[in-house]
Amino acid sequence: MATKPAPDSKRRSERSRRAIYDAALELVSEVGYAKLTIEAIAARAGVGKQTIYRWWPSKGAVLLDAFLDLGKQASEEASTAAGHELEHEIPDTGDLEADLKYVVRATIDELKNPKYDAPYRALAAEGMLNEEIGAEYVEKLLEPGLQLYVRRLRIAREAGQVAPEVDPRIALELWTGPIAQRWLQRTGPLTHEYGDKLVEYALHGIAPR
Amino acid sequence: MATKPAPDSKRRSERSRRAIYDAALELVSEVGYAKLTIEAIAARAGVGKQTIYRWWPSKGAVLLDAFLDLGKQASEEASTAAGHELEHEIPDTGDLEADLKYVVRATIDELKNPKYDAPYRALAAEGMLNEEIGAEYVEKLLEPGLQLYVRRLRIAREAGQVAPEVDPRIALELWTGPIAQRWLQRTGPLTHEYGDKLVEYALHGIAPR
Repeated sequence: MATKPAPDSKRRSERSRRAIYDAALELVSEVGYAKLTIEAIAARAGVGKQTIYRWWPSKGAVLLDAFLDLGKQASEEASTAAGHELEHEIPDTGDLEADLKYVVRATIDELKNPKYDAPYRALAAEGMLNEEIGAEYVEKLLEPGLQLYVRRLRIAREAGQVAPEVDPRIALELWTGPIAQRWLQRTGPLTHEYGDKLVEYALHGIAPR
Repeated sequence: MATKPAPDSKRRSERSRRAIYDAALELVSEVGYAKLTIEAIAARAGVGKQTIYRWWPSKGAVLLDAFLDLGKQASEEASTAAGHELEHEIPDTGDLEADLKYVVRATIDELKNPKYDAPYRALAAEGMLNEEIGAEYVEKLLEPGLQLYVRRLRIAREAGQVAPEVDPRIALELWTGPIAQRWLQRTGPLTHEYGDKLVEYALHGIAPR
């Protein structure tokens, strides 16, 4: 018979886990990803480094789980504030352009949050070099957010606001791709006005109507 | 009075430089960027590591110059083959959609060239973490290519094929952004069909006309 961990030990390990995530996020901002070590994360979190190695194979894996946990925390807090389980969907006011602009602006604000810029950038860079981390990053962090656009665009397509032949999974990249590139590679300013223009161009096209 | 290097020594240093670039590009494919060292590049290129440190401050800087040199070599070869200095412009057949698709397909083929995939990806990742390398990467490698689109879109705008209010520098990101993201983050297949769709959506919009 499998033994269930006592509630106390479960709480303790939950606390260690959060302490490890916080340490990893702080340290990557302070020293940069290249100089981040499992030893330093363990020291900052007040746990033995074996505790970290038992749960994660690499510093990239710790960072990925730290971000997944941040997402989980944020959605729990939002649900608590709302008093019920929130549905994570893009708003549907019937005005597709306004709904997309709203979410695009919020995404831009989030990407520019200085608290998460360094660690999120480090994770994205690690995912580019390390295919395993990259695949998990895309599957667990990126794609679920993109699927919200897929659902909103399908609704719009049914309502006749998106052309019937358009593939929603590709269409959403007309704005998410440029935003990702400006953020990842710093190819230009990432502003609300820029986000608005992308949505307008994507919906109406750059050729004259 | 400054002394001019003798032609012989200039040729020798040119040869060392190319040997260093080749070594850096090969090694990053073989061992990965994280394990790439200046020592290993020097050994493979048959030069002392001080020679490398005299010219470059870091392995990322070597890799960036190796790519700039590849671009220079490719354009010299193309000019020699053509028998005259080539202008690097996007074709202008009068059919904007066809011209864009042609260049987008060629870009996709280039990004998928296995010879350059690992080093180019390493350089992009390094540029995300190291702002100095990133700024040079964007200014010298990325932006000159994007400016070709700006010029082609301006011509199209003058010809009435692009709406007058459209900003060409943003419009081009409707296809270059998604392609960069699929390539950098492996978020989906990077095919000619995909590139064609991006160009179609960008020109005509995803809302019904």
